[in-house]
Amino acid sequence: MPTSPTPAITARIDAARADMARAGLDAMLITPGSDLFYLTGYAALPLERLTCLVLTDGAAALVVPTLERPAAEEAVDDALGLDIVDLGETDDVASRIRSLLDGRMSRVAVDDHMWASRVLWLQDDVGVGRVRLAGEVLAPLREIKDDYELGELRRAGEAIDRVHARVPEMLTAGRTEVEVSAAISAAIVDAGHARTDFAIVAAGPNGASPHHEPGSRVLRDGDAVVVDIGGTLPSGYASDCTRTYVVGHADPELQRMYDVLYRSQAAARDHARPGVTCASVDAAARDVIEQAGYGEFFTHRTGHGIGLETHEDPYIVDGNERRVEPGMAFSIEPGIYLPGLFGARIEDIMITLPSGCQPVNNQPRTLR
Amino acid sequence: MPTSPTPAITARIDAARADMARAGLDAMLITPGSDLFYLTGYAALPLERLTCLVLTDGAAALVVPTLERPAAEEAVDDALGLDIVDLGETDDVASRIRSLLDGRMSRVAVDDHMWASRVLWLQDDVGVGRVRLAGEVLAPLREIKDDYELGELRRAGEAIDRVHARVPEMLTAGRTEVEVSAAISAAIVDAGHARTDFAIVAAGPNGASPHHEPGSRVLRDGDAVVVDIGGTLPSGYASDCTRTYVVGHADPELQRMYDVLYRSQAAARDHARPGVTCASVDAAARDVIEQAGYGEFFTHRTGHGIGLETHEDPYIVDGNERRVEPGMAFSIEPGIYLPGLFGARIEDIMITLPSGCQPVNNQPRTLR
Repeated sequence: MPTSPTPAITARIDAARADMARAGLDAMLITPGSDLFYLTGYAALPLERLTCLVLTDGAAALVVPTLERPAAEEAVDDALGLDIVDLGETDDVASRIRSLLDGRMSRVAVDDHMWASRVLWLQDDVGVGRVRLAGEVLAPLREIKDDYELGELRRAGEAIDRVHARVPEMLTAGRTEVEVSAAISAAIVDAGHARTDFAIVAAGPNGASPHHEPGSRVLRDGDAVVVDIGGTLPSGYASDCTRTYVVGHADPELQRMYDVLYRSQAAARDHARPGVTCASVDAAARDVIEQAGYGEFFTHRTGHGIGLETHEDPYIVDGNERRVEPGMAFSIEPGIYLPGLFGARIEDIMITLPSGCQPVNNQPRTLR
Repeated sequence: MPTSPTPAITARIDAARADMARAGLDAMLITPGSDLFYLTGYAALPLERLTCLVLTDGAAALVVPTLERPAAEEAVDDALGLDIVDLGETDDVASRIRSLLDGRMSRVAVDDHMWASRVLWLQDDVGVGRVRLAGEVLAPLREIKDDYELGELRRAGEAIDRVHARVPEMLTAGRTEVEVSAAISAAIVDAGHARTDFAIVAAGPNGASPHHEPGSRVLRDGDAVVVDIGGTLPSGYASDCTRTYVVGHADPELQRMYDVLYRSQAAARDHARPGVTCASVDAAARDVIEQAGYGEFFTHRTGHGIGLETHEDPYIVDGNERRVEPGMAFSIEPGIYLPGLFGARIEDIMITLPSGCQPVNNQPRTLR
């Protein structure tokens, strides 16, 4: 997997260390997942054997099972200066971690997604005290993307746009949701993603379930079809884009509802810019829908951050007073879901530049 | 995703409750993953919004985000009698969990793979005391497969055998590892898996890295090629099988080493049966390799359990005094890795019946 340029990763490790010190943390323990990839370039497998980055003011060591040493050496650039420490099947892992921590046992943060079994093992067998979450330090860092990351998110947006450009020809009456979803999944990989993450195709009443699992429903004339799709580029960055289509001609009630949704999504995109709160972006979308009387049918938040994970900070949700800053990337995706009838959603990923927020998705947003 | 028959799931919930009581636990909290699928049939996504089975002597409730309610209702058979409780974006999740626990705050076990962020949230916001691991109860249950599960593991074995049957024709000099790996990945899905989990193709010196990531190396005449592949059936059960092939003719040194490996793997298969310890199965494989002088080049344990996860209990490793029992399924996969030269591994999944252990993989084990 291609990784961020080495100087960018070095800068992240330096920033993480500085922020650790500011947060009163002596050590961070990071297990496989996007935080580990962010800090090392290593897309480690989540194995029952321990893989863990130990980051303190003194040490930066990547502990791996002996079996995985060659893979780790291949993934991690020597220029990062990480110590790779490998442990055999019957080694005393706890004492190796203790010696890497070198006395820093009481102010330790762990990966937000570290398994509970490892957290308890750290407390009981390694002897660290009550832990905190590394996300305190890493989530704010990852929330602000550098130029390389924004470039990858743009590329991801272009890739998923190429897929949506092909969706209308796939949506013919008589095909099932699951057939269309399979065709889209293949198109996501064709468009340059390393993998398909999801390909939601929700036709007719199924569109009223925001995360509907594609099924055997046959597309019929007049169906609204919510198509919410995404994948991950070889670099690890994610795409995510929703359009709503109609098979044949739209029912006037659907069109009326859709016009409200369209205005809602446009209002939130217009409102989003550096300095406004995430909650206010949510409100910009929600107000339009509420004023039109559909408020109770917009059942989810307006959006989520995106980067190495499809859902990460910042969340565009009521109550989140975090202010939008240059470098942030997030979705704007209001939806209206009329149970038993139909649903619709429009989603773009926005990236934030000093000059304002821009969508990375640019396929038409009208009901097609 | 097809799930286990409802009576089987009901029996698992009953057994989990009985074992909880015996273990002195009042509640288990199970988040998305194979334990949740095992107990509910719901293959939930690991989302930032909480999805969690709350199992106590009084309650069996599945907490899901409102957004996921339709998916959960579709996946969970009504006959299980699970309460589905959905929570909106701004609901007070902590107080809902507290009310489901109904005072059972001090003897709580959490999913072994629950995220650290949720564990700390349970302690700090929900107010549960020091937690234990649900694996104490669930790992021993999952370790002993019922007839349905053994049947699925057999089907998985047959499916991956069909792929290995096609591998020789794919291994032609001049192709790269990554090309062969892609062809095998497609064949794994063709053979009836819902997805490919891994398709390791490690040629020549790369074979000496047990978990080599397929790369640009071109297959050459005389290369030993380790092919370790697996996928997951639509029912959730995993396959995992390794064969070592040779392109053209084998070097005599490779053949000598391979003969030792072949005898080692056969010795462990012959030894495995109800009543012997997992450690003794490891020793049966290891003794042959050590006596032939290759001991230092067999760098990993002999095997791992398999079921809804590719790696689960029981581990076939030195020190594991657990005895093999009917219903267990595990790999026997010794390997010999000569750095810079070549490597080889032979792996079968064994299922345990009262009458003995049987491989579910039956493609030839010779160097082909």
